[in-house]
Amino acid sequence: MGRWTPGAAERLQAAGIELFAARGFEQVTAAEIAAAAGLTQRTFFRHFADKRELVFRGQEAFVATAVGGVLAAPAGTGPLDCVLAGVAALSLFFTDERRPWSRLRQGIIDAEPALQERERHKLAGLATEVAAALRRRGHDDPVARTAAEVGTAVLGLAFGRWVADGEDRSFDELAAVVLAELRAVVCGGPAGA
Amino acid sequence: MGRWTPGAAERLQAAGIELFAARGFEQVTAAEIAAAAGLTQRTFFRHFADKRELVFRGQEAFVATAVGGVLAAPAGTGPLDCVLAGVAALSLFFTDERRPWSRLRQGIIDAEPALQERERHKLAGLATEVAAALRRRGHDDPVARTAAEVGTAVLGLAFGRWVADGEDRSFDELAAVVLAELRAVVCGGPAGA
Repeated sequence: MGRWTPGAAERLQAAGIELFAARGFEQVTAAEIAAAAGLTQRTFFRHFADKRELVFRGQEAFVATAVGGVLAAPAGTGPLDCVLAGVAALSLFFTDERRPWSRLRQGIIDAEPALQERERHKLAGLATEVAAALRRRGHDDPVARTAAEVGTAVLGLAFGRWVADGEDRSFDELAAVVLAELRAVVCGGPAGA
Repeated sequence: MGRWTPGAAERLQAAGIELFAARGFEQVTAAEIAAAAGLTQRTFFRHFADKRELVFRGQEAFVATAVGGVLAAPAGTGPLDCVLAGVAALSLFFTDERRPWSRLRQGIIDAEPALQERERHKLAGLATEVAAALRRRGHDDPVARTAAEVGTAVLGLAFGRWVADGEDRSFDELAAVVLAELRAVVCGGPAGA
């Protein structure tokens, strides 16, 4: 079965993102990615079920971080604020150092419907886990599900702006802006007019 | 190639949903669906790129109806109310007569991650079109995108409850309930506690 290769998943992802960005997602094979990372195709498939999964490596840590943020909110925190604590915890993944890489990766996703589909699936999976975390805190459905949907909408809209060309505000700032816009639309106010 | 077969897509979809429900999505081939509908496999692939698309037949009419609802709202209507007009227009698809069929179809989707992925992709496509309709009405981004996200969240949550076992409230009623819950979560109020 081959030796365990330290950092293989990271190396494969780095090589894959670079190749996808240069030549297009569909044009690159798993064998080429493995070769570029100095690994075998067999190692590739030990780490990733397919090329799409490589793009979304780290999803488990991402979900666990969001859930951790929700669960760490002080007792008595309302459902929306719990969810926003989960979103805030994710700013760890959205640092200025990582922004160029995130832009490169997002460009690959935006050019490929199959990757967009997988991205939405991952976001929906996150909403499911966040709703479960809210239920563990005593917020039952439908509030838990509704708050989780709002949280993933804030995350998706804020992330989309954070990776946009020319944007230099931090993810936290953008999440606050998006939340204010959402409140204006849903609750009434100047930005909703 | 081949003669135009009246109602072929409808017949294929009806046969497909029935077979998927009986035997599972993965276990049924396009050839079997075509045979059950009294058609050829070639006709199947003239109508559908793959088995997944069969489950989502009618998406264009669905999107056009939502967009029509948004565009038909009276001049001066705010962005959220425009979006809710689009959601209300979709109640045409969610009648009591159709509910048993929708439940059967949703059971197939819920059992199959690949179909859930496609469903979310379709919902995201709807959000994109609704945002474009809002921009045509003069509501620019970020309000257009935010309102469209809120609308698809209301639609998704209301639809999920409408197809739930034992639910007999109308889609319109459930959309109003979901909106009230969403407002309580986002804007504060008793249900958000």
